Parts: sequence; C-alpha cells; structure tokens
Amino acid sequence: MEKFEVKAYGAASTTADLKEINISRRQATDEDVEIDILFCGVCHSDLHTVRNDWGGSIYPSVPGHEIIGRVTKVGSAVSKFKVGDLAGVGCMVDSCGICPSCKKDLEQYCEPGFTGTYNGKDKHLGGHTFGGYSEKVVVKESFVLRVPENLDPAAAAPLLCAGITTWSPLRHWNVKEGDNVAVVGLGGLGHMAIKLAKAMGANVTLFSRSPEKEKDAKELGADAIVISTDKQQMAGAKNKFDLIIDTVPYVHDVNEYIPTLTISGTIVLVGYLGPLEPMLNTVPMILGRKSVAGSVIGGIAETQEMLDFCGKHGIVSEIEIIKMQEINEAYERMLKSDVRYRFVIDMGTLKG
Amino acid sequence: MEKFEVKAYGAASTTADLKEINISRRQATDEDVEIDILFCGVCHSDLHTVRNDWGGSIYPSVPGHEIIGRVTKVGSAVSKFKVGDLAGVGCMVDSCGICPSCKKDLEQYCEPGFTGTYNGKDKHLGGHTFGGYSEKVVVKESFVLRVPENLDPAAAAPLLCAGITTWSPLRHWNVKEGDNVAVVGLGGLGHMAIKLAKAMGANVTLFSRSPEKEKDAKELGADAIVISTDKQQMAGAKNKFDLIIDTVPYVHDVNEYIPTLTISGTIVLVGYLGPLEPMLNTVPMILGRKSVAGSVIGGIAETQEMLDFCGKHGIVSEIEIIKMQEINEAYERMLKSDVRYRFVIDMGTLKG
Repeated sequence: MEKFEVKAYGAASTTADLKEINISRRQATDEDVEIDILFCGVCHSDLHTVRNDWGGSIYPSVPGHEIIGRVTKVGSAVSKFKVGDLAGVGCMVDSCGICPSCKKDLEQYCEPGFTGTYNGKDKHLGGHTFGGYSEKVVVKESFVLRVPENLDPAAAAPLLCAGITTWSPLRHWNVKEGDNVAVVGLGGLGHMAIKLAKAMGANVTLFSRSPEKEKDAKELGADAIVISTDKQQMAGAKNKFDLIIDTVPYVHDVNEYIPTLTISGTIVLVGYLGPLEPMLNTVPMILGRKSVAGSVIGGIAETQEMLDFCGKHGIVSEIEIIKMQEINEAYERMLKSDVRYRFVIDMGTLKG
Repeated sequence: MEKFEVKAYGAASTTADLKEINISRRQATDEDVEIDILFCGVCHSDLHTVRNDWGGSIYPSVPGHEIIGRVTKVGSAVSKFKVGDLAGVGCMVDSCGICPSCKKDLEQYCEPGFTGTYNGKDKHLGGHTFGGYSEKVVVKESFVLRVPENLDPAAAAPLLCAGITTWSPLRHWNVKEGDNVAVVGLGGLGHMAIKLAKAMGANVTLFSRSPEKEKDAKELGADAIVISTDKQQMAGAKNKFDLIIDTVPYVHDVNEYIPTLTISGTIVLVGYLGPLEPMLNTVPMILGRKSVAGSVIGGIAETQEMLDFCGKHGIVSEIEIIKMQEINEAYERMLKSDVRYRFVIDMGTLKG
C-alpha cells in the first residue's frame, strides 16, 4: 500500500520523553479523508498510553485523539467532505461495522473492539496506529466528523473526547430541561459535562472537595456547588439528582454520592477504571432503585450530534494552547492537575 | 381507638421461638378493610426480622407480609372492596402519600419511609405493626390488593412479596417479548422471576452453580441454564442478557455476571443487602455501558398490575403448605434452602 512520511511526536519507550520522529501515513484510499492537523487536544489517556499505565502500549507511541484539521485530500467515494473543510477525528478510526453494537451506531462498544486512533491495529499498513500528535492523519470517511465552522478550532478539539465522553451519558440517560444533574470532579471531562448539561437545560451542580472551585464552576454554567466533604451539604442534596456524571479518574468512594441520587437515578462513571474501593453498598441502591453505571466516549453519529449541538450553542472547551515541544512539561502539569481545563497543541509548531 | 383481640404467632425476643400470642387490631375505620387471613407466605425477611438480623426489630415480633384473605368488614368510605372479596396485603400498609415517590405511585420508595406490614410504626394504635401470622388484619383500603378469584389463594400469597419484587424490575427496565433475561438464584424470588419473565415473552436463562437445577428451571419456564462456575458456559453467554435479576440473598461476586450483560444492559440486585465483595470492577461496566442497580418490592398500583397479569396468565408460586405450628421448623429448613419454593401457612390451623 502506498504511503508517505509525516513528522510526529512520539515516545520510544515507557520511560522516554516524547520527541520528534517520522511516521508513515497511507495514501488516501477511495474511502479516506486526509487531514492536515491544526490542533490536537491532550487527554489523560495520551499520558497513560505513553507511559504504559494500562499495559499493552506499543512503541513508538504517538498519542492524540482530539484532532481538528483541514481536509487536504478526499478519496473518490467520499461524499461528506471536500478539500478545505474543517474536520475532526476522535478516539476511533474504525470498527468491525457488523456486530450488534456497530449496527446500532455504538461503534464505541464494537464487540471485537474498535480501532483506536492510536495504539490500535493498523489494518492498512500493518503495525499500530499513530494519533494526532503529527502533521497529518488519514482516516476512513465514516469515522471523520464535520466540525462547525463557527467554533474556534483549537477549543473545539477536546470535544472529540472530553466532550463526547460526557455528552453520551447525558443523552443515553435522557437528560432534559429541568432535570437535576451533578458532576463529580472539575477537570477536562467535568468542565465539559457542566457546559453540555447546562446547555441541555438541566440544573447543574458540581460536587467538589474544594470550595475555591465555586467561582469557576459557576462561570462554566453550574448553578450550585456541593462540597462533598461537608456532611450537612451532602445531607441537603439527598434524593436530588436524576443523573450524576462522575469524572474522577482515580479510585474514590462512590457510596458518598448514592444518597444524593433521586429515586431511580443513576451515577455514571466515566473517569475511573478499576475496582470500586471502598466496596459499593447495595442497601441505598436497593432501597432507592439507584444504579451505578459506566460509559465510554460515544458513537460516531452521536459525536456528530454533539458537535452540531456545540456549534448551535457556541460551546467549546476551556483550553491552554501549547507548542508541540512543550508536551513533556504539559504531562507533568497534568499529573498535578495544573491545567484549566485542557491542553491543546498548536500543531503548526511541529511543522515549524 | 377501638380495637379487638386476635390470635397470632410471634416471637417474644431475638432468641425465642414463635408461639401463639394475642395481639390487638384496630376496629376498621371508614377507610379500612378488615381481612380474615386464609394464607400467609413465609419470606426470608420474616426470619431476619424475628431474629433481629438487620437490627431494629421490635418485640413481640409477628411477621408475615404475603397475606391473602377474605374481606370481613369495610369502612364507609371503602369503594373497591366488599365483604367476601378475596384480598391481599403485601409488605406495606401505609406511606406518607405526599412525597415525590408516593405521588408517582412508588410507595416502596416513600421518602420518610413506608409503614411496614410488620415491625413498622402503628399510626393508629401506637407501638408497632403486626404481620400476617394472625387471624385477621385491618388495612387502609389503598394498601389492599384485589386478588383474582381464579388463582389458588394459597399459591397466590407469595406474589405479594416474591412476585412483586421480581415483577417491578422486569417492568421498570422494560422487558418485552424476545428480550433475553437471566435470573441468578432459584429460590422464592428466582422461581417467580422465571415465571414472570417467561410470561412477558422473554427468553429466560437461569444462572446456577448446580447443574441439577436444570430440570426444575425448565419446568418453571426457563429456556436455558448456564452453570456459573463453568467458564466455557459463561464465555458463551457473553453480551447476551438485556436484564439480569440477581436474587441471591448472600454476598457473592457480581463481577462474574457483568460480561454476560448486553451493551447497555443492567443487573438488578433484589436479594443481597450489604457491601459488594469482592469489589465491583468498573472496567467492563464502562467499556459496555453496563449498570448495576437495586430494586425493592414495588408500588401498590404496580402490585395490582402484577396480580392482574398473574390472574390472566394463571401464574402462582410453587409452594409447600405448612401449619402455623410448624413455623419454627420451617425457618430451620429455609436456612438450609430446603423449600421449593415458598412455604405458605394455612392460617386455618391457627384458628382451629
């Protein structure tokens, strides 16, 4: 298969810093869209993959799955994009297309597994896929998103992961005007959850351990903040929330939040992968028909719906733009939660 | 308030056997229905309450919340019942009536707490409520159920708790014809879950550790059995079930069942109250949008709906009828799971 070289930023091993390398991209097939990458958001998954925190990382590792760019080439069968269009690529670049999940536009739950934008199996060139920390990317049309031209392209990049990760549960659990929605954690995911839930017409509350987050939360659209370490405030929120989006990426006590769910309410975990410690107690779940659920990103059609919604409501992420060469420092700052709320790489700095 | 004495069977303390005692019932008020009890099912909750396993038991303790009898008196404001009607009383005899749950016919989730048929606060006579191990009971009309006359009254008694406890999640999670439903555990609750799910048109599978349960499960209506200790069988059930009703009353590993849920599926715990040990792992929940939920009994309107459905489909519990005097021995047998599938007390033996 024909291919071409592009500059990228990747890590050679678990312990190596990211640095400039060259990678191959396939020449666009009839069904492909070639995109010149303008901006790429920096997700916690990028860091976890580069450092092999979840196991299974393949090197060189070129992360990045919040990609925004301009279309520079389209295959002959491509109908939704033309050269010059603003386009986006999220966490997936392919899926089986035939399993029950794919048939229901739930590619994120593809039974054999979707192809990750990075660290996935490259069906075309062999080896593994490389993400958006690069000059260009070539992706099957059906996995490319249309990005509303009225949105700032840099600030729209995080919609492709942080945005859809919070949008999907808000939609699946049918949040509507007047519903009470709470968000646990105010980071890349949490701040998008607040903005999206608010734009859907929900009353939005932030759960936080830090009273100083109140000002920021309200500026983002939250109606209230509940300090989760304050027993009186927690008791005051009893049976209140139809849906809680829990974005906290580390182990924490989910039991604290169950009593604040309304009868038949659900808390959806989108950030923490691992055993629920301390153990989840079934008593308040049973006595209030409450659910604990999980959710991962969203399907392609749903991602397009979210982008169109964001275009209509002028919603983007709060970002700090960095140069490609600052990525290693940015990872260190992310580990200290020193980012409001998402780093986005100006990919022009790689092209130089 | 006027009252009268009836014979009952109750325990004087945590360690005492049940024996015949006298208790008071209020004279029916304008809104009350007086019922001559014919049969009373024996629920695990009866035993737990008598022995104070959950704490908070009040003595003398007269359990029983699967009550079927004939109406012997109705208050002047009673419109749904007349003397001679077959009537049922389940786990609740009152609720606040004004909280959001009660307003939505979800009295089982009454926010200040419903009044239990036994061990609840008696608003009329003071003290605590006494259950169905007695000659008569007097209950507010709105908490009395109509029992289809075509059902065997003894075998219908367990519908009032075991039936509604499994019916409510089947309805709330919207089980419909052709859905795949699994049931964990084949006891009082589990056998009702199989019968009800089957009558709703679902394909029903029993999860069990015991291959010898297959014959019984199929006679009850199950289409298949999956031996939960058989890794190959469990792998074969991957992503299969829209809903799992987990009726197991003791601590067990819920993680085993999550992979067998379909994408967006739910496992509902109705039997075990306590911490989920081993810890629930969020990974398969997040990667398959799967939920772990709880549910308790059902509302009064929903209980009536279930009874009407059972009347239409000729569904009752599988029972073993005992004399009132055999209750202590029956408790010992229940602890050894030596019952298929519900003991029902012939209350004539108390009168006789």
